[in-house]
Amino acid sequence: MVFDLVIKNGIIVTASEVLQDGLEIGIKNGKISCIGTDLPTSSNTEIVDAEGAYITPGGVDSHVHLAQKNSPTGDTWETGTRSAIAGGTTTVIAFASQQKADTSLWPVLEDYKKKSTGQTYCDYGFHFILTNPTPEILRDELPILAEQEGITSVKLYMTYELMKLNDREVLRILFACKSLGMTTMIHAESHDMISMIIEGLERNKNTEPYFHAVARPRIAEDEASYRAISLAELADAPMLIVHMSSDVAISHVRDAQTRLLPIHAETCPHYLFLLSEKIKAEPHDHFCGAKHVCSPPLRHDTKDLEALWQSIANGTFTTWSSDHAPSKYDHPGGKRLGLIDGVPRFSKIPNGLPGIETRVPLLFSGTPACRSQEEVRLSLPRFVQLTATNPAKLYGLDGKKGSIAPGYDADLIIWHPGNTGATTISQSIMHHDIDYTPFEGIRVGNWPRYTILRGQVVWDQAKGVTGQVGYGKYLKRGKGQVLVGKTGNVPRGMKPEERGCWVP
Amino acid sequence: MVFDLVIKNGIIVTASEVLQDGLEIGIKNGKISCIGTDLPTSSNTEIVDAEGAYITPGGVDSHVHLAQKNSPTGDTWETGTRSAIAGGTTTVIAFASQQKADTSLWPVLEDYKKKSTGQTYCDYGFHFILTNPTPEILRDELPILAEQEGITSVKLYMTYELMKLNDREVLRILFACKSLGMTTMIHAESHDMISMIIEGLERNKNTEPYFHAVARPRIAEDEASYRAISLAELADAPMLIVHMSSDVAISHVRDAQTRLLPIHAETCPHYLFLLSEKIKAEPHDHFCGAKHVCSPPLRHDTKDLEALWQSIANGTFTTWSSDHAPSKYDHPGGKRLGLIDGVPRFSKIPNGLPGIETRVPLLFSGTPACRSQEEVRLSLPRFVQLTATNPAKLYGLDGKKGSIAPGYDADLIIWHPGNTGATTISQSIMHHDIDYTPFEGIRVGNWPRYTILRGQVVWDQAKGVTGQVGYGKYLKRGKGQVLVGKTGNVPRGMKPEERGCWVP
Amino acid sequence: MVFDLVIKNGIIVTASEVLQDGLEIGIKNGKISCIGTDLPTSSNTEIVDAEGAYITPGGVDSHVHLAQKNSPTGDTWETGTRSAIAGGTTTVIAFASQQKADTSLWPVLEDYKKKSTGQTYCDYGFHFILTNPTPEILRDELPILAEQEGITSVKLYMTYELMKLNDREVLRILFACKSLGMTTMIHAESHDMISMIIEGLERNKNTEPYFHAVARPRIAEDEASYRAISLAELADAPMLIVHMSSDVAISHVRDAQTRLLPIHAETCPHYLFLLSEKIKAEPHDHFCGAKHVCSPPLRHDTKDLEALWQSIANGTFTTWSSDHAPSKYDHPGGKRLGLIDGVPRFSKIPNGLPGIETRVPLLFSGTPACRSQEEVRLSLPRFVQLTATNPAKLYGLDGKKGSIAPGYDADLIIWHPGNTGATTISQSIMHHDIDYTPFEGIRVGNWPRYTILRGQVVWDQAKGVTGQVGYGKYLKRGKGQVLVGKTGNVPRGMKPEERGCWVP
Amino acid sequence: MVFDLVIKNGIIVTASEVLQDGLEIGIKNGKISCIGTDLPTSSNTEIVDAEGAYITPGGVDSHVHLAQKNSPTGDTWETGTRSAIAGGTTTVIAFASQQKADTSLWPVLEDYKKKSTGQTYCDYGFHFILTNPTPEILRDELPILAEQEGITSVKLYMTYELMKLNDREVLRILFACKSLGMTTMIHAESHDMISMIIEGLERNKNTEPYFHAVARPRIAEDEASYRAISLAELADAPMLIVHMSSDVAISHVRDAQTRLLPIHAETCPHYLFLLSEKIKAEPHDHFCGAKHVCSPPLRHDTKDLEALWQSIANGTFTTWSSDHAPSKYDHPGGKRLGLIDGVPRFSKIPNGLPGIETRVPLLFSGTPACRSQEEVRLSLPRFVQLTATNPAKLYGLDGKKGSIAPGYDADLIIWHPGNTGATTISQSIMHHDIDYTPFEGIRVGNWPRYTILRGQVVWDQAKGVTGQVGYGKYLKRGKGQVLVGKTGNVPRGMKPEERGCWVP
Repeated sequence: MVFDLVIKNGIIVTASEVLQDGLEIGIKNGKISCIGTDLPTSSNTEIVDAEGAYITPGGVDSHVHLAQKNSPTGDTWETGTRSAIAGGTTTVIAFASQQKADTSLWPVLEDYKKKSTGQTYCDYGFHFILTNPTPEILRDELPILAEQEGITSVKLYMTYELMKLNDREVLRILFACKSLGMTTMIHAESHDMISMIIEGLERNKNTEPYFHAVARPRIAEDEASYRAISLAELADAPMLIVHMSSDVAISHVRDAQTRLLPIHAETCPHYLFLLSEKIKAEPHDHFCGAKHVCSPPLRHDTKDLEALWQSIANGTFTTWSSDHAPSKYDHPGGKRLGLIDGVPRFSKIPNGLPGIETRVPLLFSGTPACRSQEEVRLSLPRFVQLTATNPAKLYGLDGKKGSIAPGYDADLIIWHPGNTGATTISQSIMHHDIDYTPFEGIRVGNWPRYTILRGQVVWDQAKGVTGQVGYGKYLKRGKGQVLVGKTGNVPRGMKPEERGCWVP
Repeated sequence: MVFDLVIKNGIIVTASEVLQDGLEIGIKNGKISCIGTDLPTSSNTEIVDAEGAYITPGGVDSHVHLAQKNSPTGDTWETGTRSAIAGGTTTVIAFASQQKADTSLWPVLEDYKKKSTGQTYCDYGFHFILTNPTPEILRDELPILAEQEGITSVKLYMTYELMKLNDREVLRILFACKSLGMTTMIHAESHDMISMIIEGLERNKNTEPYFHAVARPRIAEDEASYRAISLAELADAPMLIVHMSSDVAISHVRDAQTRLLPIHAETCPHYLFLLSEKIKAEPHDHFCGAKHVCSPPLRHDTKDLEALWQSIANGTFTTWSSDHAPSKYDHPGGKRLGLIDGVPRFSKIPNGLPGIETRVPLLFSGTPACRSQEEVRLSLPRFVQLTATNPAKLYGLDGKKGSIAPGYDADLIIWHPGNTGATTISQSIMHHDIDYTPFEGIRVGNWPRYTILRGQVVWDQAKGVTGQVGYGKYLKRGKGQVLVGKTGNVPRGMKPEERGCWVP
Repeated sequence: MVFDLVIKNGIIVTASEVLQDGLEIGIKNGKISCIGTDLPTSSNTEIVDAEGAYITPGGVDSHVHLAQKNSPTGDTWETGTRSAIAGGTTTVIAFASQQKADTSLWPVLEDYKKKSTGQTYCDYGFHFILTNPTPEILRDELPILAEQEGITSVKLYMTYELMKLNDREVLRILFACKSLGMTTMIHAESHDMISMIIEGLERNKNTEPYFHAVARPRIAEDEASYRAISLAELADAPMLIVHMSSDVAISHVRDAQTRLLPIHAETCPHYLFLLSEKIKAEPHDHFCGAKHVCSPPLRHDTKDLEALWQSIANGTFTTWSSDHAPSKYDHPGGKRLGLIDGVPRFSKIPNGLPGIETRVPLLFSGTPACRSQEEVRLSLPRFVQLTATNPAKLYGLDGKKGSIAPGYDADLIIWHPGNTGATTISQSIMHHDIDYTPFEGIRVGNWPRYTILRGQVVWDQAKGVTGQVGYGKYLKRGKGQVLVGKTGNVPRGMKPEERGCWVP
Repeated sequence: MVFDLVIKNGIIVTASEVLQDGLEIGIKNGKISCIGTDLPTSSNTEIVDAEGAYITPGGVDSHVHLAQKNSPTGDTWETGTRSAIAGGTTTVIAFASQQKADTSLWPVLEDYKKKSTGQTYCDYGFHFILTNPTPEILRDELPILAEQEGITSVKLYMTYELMKLNDREVLRILFACKSLGMTTMIHAESHDMISMIIEGLERNKNTEPYFHAVARPRIAEDEASYRAISLAELADAPMLIVHMSSDVAISHVRDAQTRLLPIHAETCPHYLFLLSEKIKAEPHDHFCGAKHVCSPPLRHDTKDLEALWQSIANGTFTTWSSDHAPSKYDHPGGKRLGLIDGVPRFSKIPNGLPGIETRVPLLFSGTPACRSQEEVRLSLPRFVQLTATNPAKLYGLDGKKGSIAPGYDADLIIWHPGNTGATTISQSIMHHDIDYTPFEGIRVGNWPRYTILRGQVVWDQAKGVTGQVGYGKYLKRGKGQVLVGKTGNVPRGMKPEERGCWVP
């Protein structure tokens, strides 16, 4: 019981409790070794004084796009993970993305490994985006991916011309993943609805950035979410619907969860903090709305936002991710791809926003740590679940990441005590390699004072980034947990004994 | 006020009332001229005495397949309409069906006209099945179809390899039809779910007829129905979902109707009277289940049936059709196409059942005319709505068909008085050209004593068919009415002012 | 076939159809004898030319308070029914009201008969309000009331100190009425919620008229409606919930109707056309809000109104009544009872509004007869159902009132043709004995040109009231019909065979 | 860091995680001092070897009736708490119960203190049952009860002649409790429905025990639950609905939780494991059904049970309590009170079952510790939430009871490792002072091997009860946490600014 690091005087928050203040965390070899009182220290023990502040698990951002082949500009693994730790995130799971032409995943993986290995400030893993799920890939490659590479999740798209899968392909993947204990993430928007609207808008020359929001109405998300849930029910496979933004779609998830279907849901800060008016032109820059173009789009009304906050609090959402998918605004290979001969073409604007650094503080600002009782949006344990514990469990990192408990990696955020940490979000304080933040000017009640990764202080707000590029380790992940519902359900209208007759 | 025919002593039932007994119907030139008491008669006036029986409008069967190119055997227009009038149906709307290779509808229409003109016992019209909705057809042909030919409805399939349309095509048709005041019928089952299951069943050699029901679980209908409703909501277009058989799918329709979306629903007798156990093999004939193969399939539980009866009574269903789509059982070009080298292959069995003759009596058997108060399934006016008034209105025949009122065609069913008409359904009393009836042995409380079409008695149960082939007339139909909800809704999540930006 | 009166050139609207124009209605002895074309006339036949206008059934207003003992001022039977016919209503069902101290209904009935007999311009009947349902009344008097007096409906209150019944009493009445085929009407607001809020408002000196709306929030109606439905489900008895004004309460009715419970719902014009802002003080008269004090109160938001319009169109509402329950505004025994020593006391203001004359035109203004397709609120047949056919059927007047069909009383409204009847509602054109109309200034698209009662023109807009006081007849009503759902349901959670063990 | 007790080799389960095996728990002065690895021990340190078994928090049973004045027989505090610790429960919250005649709570409290002080094997607290909530009690006594006595919860009844409150009284209590941070528990069944049915059953001489279940159908619970939730919504006060047994009632809670109303729900083992058939007579003992008489009653169908298990798993239920309310079966003052002159009278049978000892093992038997993945009913963390963490938080014991974390009382259950603990429940192994267990013959997958209370082993399955009567301490409880939803909601239909106008 000799510790490398002891953190004193904090208030530890777990996914279920706010522990009494004054407990100490003893850390050894990068792991939490002990939690208790009066921990013994030696001269080699470093001491960090939390000064009465909350201590929460290091953030796990499970939806991050870094240096993807199909994204023209944006953060590298270095700049993206630097931004992550400055905002309290110690683990990112980013995407390796198959292109339609890729008939094997191995060269793709090799490529993404090359770009990331030794290039990160924080620990990291991969989800695999499947855009061409050949029988060979599903049969021969996925098992190796899961068991040898520790990549235990895939992501699918129901929209985007170059990425979308049809329902049959989605089903095939769900069955394949289920048998391997892999988790399927799905982007649920109706491609056919959206492409029909885009065609109409373009015919009518309605191509300013704002029409991106018109082109992707909530009903496109509602229908696709219902369909995705139905496919998962048929396959009896766990699923997470990513970046949900519509109350009706969420009500489908709620209903599914009530029936114990293993349907998880994710949302992102921009859907809770920003409205579609942000996509409108401004006098000085008619194209500036492009900064806020993402899919699904920002929604119209504050009551859309209220429905999302409600689902944050009532437990329907499983994870809170950044969907960090940025493009530089003032760059010919960035958002300006949507400006053709000076004419805006919303359908050509790269989708996505930066947000890896602001994700954790924005949600923390909704907790009782930052708000009066009347204004509270979620409890502190719920904050921990959404930002760390749940994504870690869902993606096979439990036992290692996402919790403050003996045996886990010593990944921690120490906040400023009391009200001393309030901060206004501004591009000037960001650490990404992007030229704006969509949350400019929003004031959050606190900001990570220290980010600790495996026992090392990698972010000290007083000093800046103290971690080193290359310190981040690749995470071989295990099988994910089912956090809501369960498998073993029989699809509606099928007799239990009939399932075995056909299941692949 | 001199009548060709006066019907006395009946109890007239309309879509909203059971009128006092003893009213007389005066008919002239094939039309109802007058309803009242003490109508004057002359020596030229024929008198029919209804003897205290109910008089209901002649049935309108709006979902009938006759002599379709893609159906190998089955009724001709002659045998099918003969069967219709023997069961109280005086109007059928059958399908003219485009094949994928047909790039124009005109030759198709010509072909169907050839097969039907002068060949029918009852009045008739066409719906057009679209399987290849080219821009030319939608732009150039549909308007002529509606305005010149009086074909104001189309039918689409979301399933069947050779017929299915994708969501984009469905949307295109919905928009085109909406602008023409045409009604879109849709067969809503998820093709991708079903084809996945069929593949699995075949791989596992589970190919007996019963597995047809396993291959098309309710969830396939639930998902496709939700999707179809969403597409109609986006297009703000009226729709009828045909032959619904699942309580969850119907609840989607109910929700849509609550919100005033113009979503109509149809069901058929076999879903209310038969269970999937009918598809099972019997000792003496392991293939006999093929007789009951239709899509959606018969469902498993009596509680599925109860849910449908409930939706009959509570108004969710708009129409009650036969989906008469028969194949001979004991015929190499009929159901036996699904028996290959003596091995059953459910996926090759022609889908569909005969039912044009039994449709009206089966539903009438649920009314207070045939049942004790405790057992009643629906009221007499609701029976009239479902079998006649609603399909007539929905498909542009109002003012002419489907009601007992002055000005309408004198199409009537006169039932047997009291309890004197009870009949056991049996192949031996059918008038179709099919070798079985799926309702064999079911006892109905009454049977049409007389069927009257445009003032002529075409069915007299004592004499048999008294009408003549060729008496039936082609019906140019007008624009359909929206019977539930309304158009003019804004899709969920869209601002009203945004609709005009893109609508085709 | 010699008629006293023939109405020509109209467009007859029934509860299910808009008939072709040009049909004639032949009337004899006050009844519709014949509908048809080319009706024979003699020199004794009066002809009314409808000039292409719509003809709808004379209105049946099934919720009217006239000269009630507990209402200090308001219309007499003479002035109230005069106002009725001027607005197209030919039948009213008003209340005879038991006081708590009345241990027998007979003296009460005698009293109400005395006030009404020979005093009415239109036909009329009674509902009985029960405030003290003794076993003797339920056992001995109700059957006589129904069978001999033709009073086949009762009304109950769940609120108001002097009238409210507890749930046990409600159950007893439901059981008693069910066995007699009587219909139970219920005012559903939670007395305990409301009295708690009133107490708080008064303690805080918040007593202006507007606080009446604060004191009766929608949740009070929601809870009581759910409770009332549950009691009806347990008793397996038909019920009508009167004057519904809350979307959640209506959704409970919708759910009940989906499950085939016999739960009917009523709403009134003021809930569809007026908002709670009407109850606010105005500069020139701080008490004027009292004019709009009724219970349930006018609601806050236009979206509350939208939900009601939706339920008008989707069929959830069964009847549209006036709840005519007026008090003079500028009268010490009227609304000014709520002004005590110059201080407003909302809880002392007599509840209720005048509306018997405006009821029918206000709803007609939502039909295609008065509005562009985009703005239509309901179809013409639905208008007929709500204003005439449904209340007639529900309250045992079918076969006699509420429909245009041979055998029915010749009670008709003939509207102005085309757009020629638009009228602005104003106190100056009212025929009640009240000093204001709450609908002042609302423009309706048409107004009854003629009201015909049993073949007599009793209102001719050009001449004014042409009927005579005393022409109205008392209506002995038969058993009511169940218009939605059915009886014979088993309450949720009870085995069917268990019901007989206890049902009274 | 010298420990009195160290527990080694266990697998610690918290409300959010199953921690890695091999962690050690260091206990000092009855509290958990430290959790970690390689904890130092001294010669004074006792070691308990968990041998790879799960360690869960000592159970908190928050619904227990012991020696209540109104209960004729049953367990004393001594026998009841002895039974508790033998089944893994280390904290009970039992009731002090006001009688209608009690105009002050102090003598009642004194009485209950007298019966309990020094008489318990485990720690304990009181809820107060209010049956006569006078203004004085609410204003003067409740605050002292909460602040000085640490009694921060009350229980109300909507049924039972001698205990029921009306809605106004419920509202008053909700407001009073809200302002004091007290939690309100409510028994939600419709008294008026039930008393009506009982009257009918007795009239028909249907008085055997089974008719108790007929007399209290699910609809009585459904209605009362909806009403209770509405009252809580109006008062904006937290509530827990006790012993829920109906799927519809639970769906009301689910809906309320979705909307963030602070509505908690409790259920009990008998509703999940037993059906109403248990209440039926058996050949050898026609009265034996009395053993299973409780309210709400056991329900009829396994699908009722499935709905409850679903709500266990999906998070709708907050707590799992025993509702231990036993009466001896073969005792004139016990269940036999319902046998009058040899004739059973169900309405006189004392309600309630013993279950304090079986509560925890029954639920544990549904976890992955005892079942194959296919059969799992709930996760281990969910088990911990329901049996310990949630009741502790809800009733103001957080920080002290219900969790395994440093600073908490060292209250623990150590289970048998692997499959070695399977046990068949039988009266012969019970420690209560009752002559039967309703769960006789049910096999559970494990049983507490050790129960530890504040660091002392009080139950060692090998030795029996090792704790001492009198070791149990009275718990002054703090304010309860709101575990679902939040306060600060505005009731439906009320403007936010209107709430302040009247709230007491």
